[in-house]
Amino acid sequence: MAVEITALNWVPDFARGYVRDLRPRWACEEIGLPYTTRLISPVPPKPDWYFDEQPWGQVPVLHDGDVQLFESGAILLHIAEKDIRLLSRDPQQRATSIAWVFAALNSVEPGLFELGNVTLFSKDAEWAKLRRPSLMEDIGRKLDRLVDALGDRAWLGDAFSVADIAMVTVLRNADKSELLRARPTLAAYVERGMARPAFERAMAAQLADFQPEPAAA
Amino acid sequence: MAVEITALNWVPDFARGYVRDLRPRWACEEIGLPYTTRLISPVPPKPDWYFDEQPWGQVPVLHDGDVQLFESGAILLHIAEKDIRLLSRDPQQRATSIAWVFAALNSVEPGLFELGNVTLFSKDAEWAKLRRPSLMEDIGRKLDRLVDALGDRAWLGDAFSVADIAMVTVLRNADKSELLRARPTLAAYVERGMARPAFERAMAAQLADFQPEPAAA
Repeated sequence: MAVEITALNWVPDFARGYVRDLRPRWACEEIGLPYTTRLISPVPPKPDWYFDEQPWGQVPVLHDGDVQLFESGAILLHIAEKDIRLLSRDPQQRATSIAWVFAALNSVEPGLFELGNVTLFSKDAEWAKLRRPSLMEDIGRKLDRLVDALGDRAWLGDAFSVADIAMVTVLRNADKSELLRARPTLAAYVERGMARPAFERAMAAQLADFQPEPAAA
Repeated sequence: MAVEITALNWVPDFARGYVRDLRPRWACEEIGLPYTTRLISPVPPKPDWYFDEQPWGQVPVLHDGDVQLFESGAILLHIAEKDIRLLSRDPQQRATSIAWVFAALNSVEPGLFELGNVTLFSKDAEWAKLRRPSLMEDIGRKLDRLVDALGDRAWLGDAFSVADIAMVTVLRNADKSELLRARPTLAAYVERGMARPAFERAMAAQLADFQPEPAAA
């Protein structure tokens, strides 16, 4: 039975291909799990019922039969539990994959959230101009650790797993900055993830769901 | 068999009771899972072998038999899988709890990380003074959503779960700011968590492990 992923029916050009429903789409594509999309409008105000499903008013939400959940990390783990190609049953490999999902979302993404704020949403604010150098240093130090941890392996664990879906989609938030260009190990890792046919299908599907203009949900 | 939690043997006063090994300690205490601690020094440089266990050089790390893992969120889920008092076997309740663990760590904590930077670590920097008002607004909007989501329930799910360990320990990072004082629902929620005997034991145990001076690991 197909799962249902909630996504947006429109975003500005700069966000296309980066909205977080890409994560569960990619996970579904990796294991051949069919999914449908429920498209909602980004135009505020969101309807009250939506906050009951997603307390921040964001996407994605996953419906899987009678079960619904939010947060892309939780949704990734939920889908990953269905197939060893995303989450091994070996206890150590399973633990390593889940650790890296959290590492991507709690240790790497927060700095990149703020970088998006500094370089895009608040770029004209004086604080943002002053903050940028130290923020780039903070993120850079974290990414240097990630380079060491990845070493010469292709993926974070012994094989591709849900951890790589999380980390590649997090790192793509920096794909226009020197943070990745200066770290060929990470740039190659992101390229490797994006070259997977499942990623390409997920990306194409997200882009195909956008309407020319913001439409009511 | 006891699990082993890696913690620090010293931190400055302001950090005592807030280091993230508190999370797995609390989880263990809730279910009566015995644990030992391995104490490491906060004084750099960390030994190379430690980065093999924890790529950021932080705590906690969990050892559970032959399995080791890092990231407090992953460790919380690992412990929670052992006992329905932390993670229900009901599919929806399980999904809700895991969603809120990620919500705490990926949607709420990132703003509070930056607030720690603005109010403590970088407080004398010009950018930090300029950033504070908008950051407080950003976090406040998120916390207002959390107030709505919590409603008049005692815990994030139908009963106390691992989600509350994650969220209460995240919110405690703001316990000295008006962010919680201005939101009695959240202040009461944090107090409720901290009043649990298991929390009190975990807190006492973390404090008891600190040495008077930083000691080599």
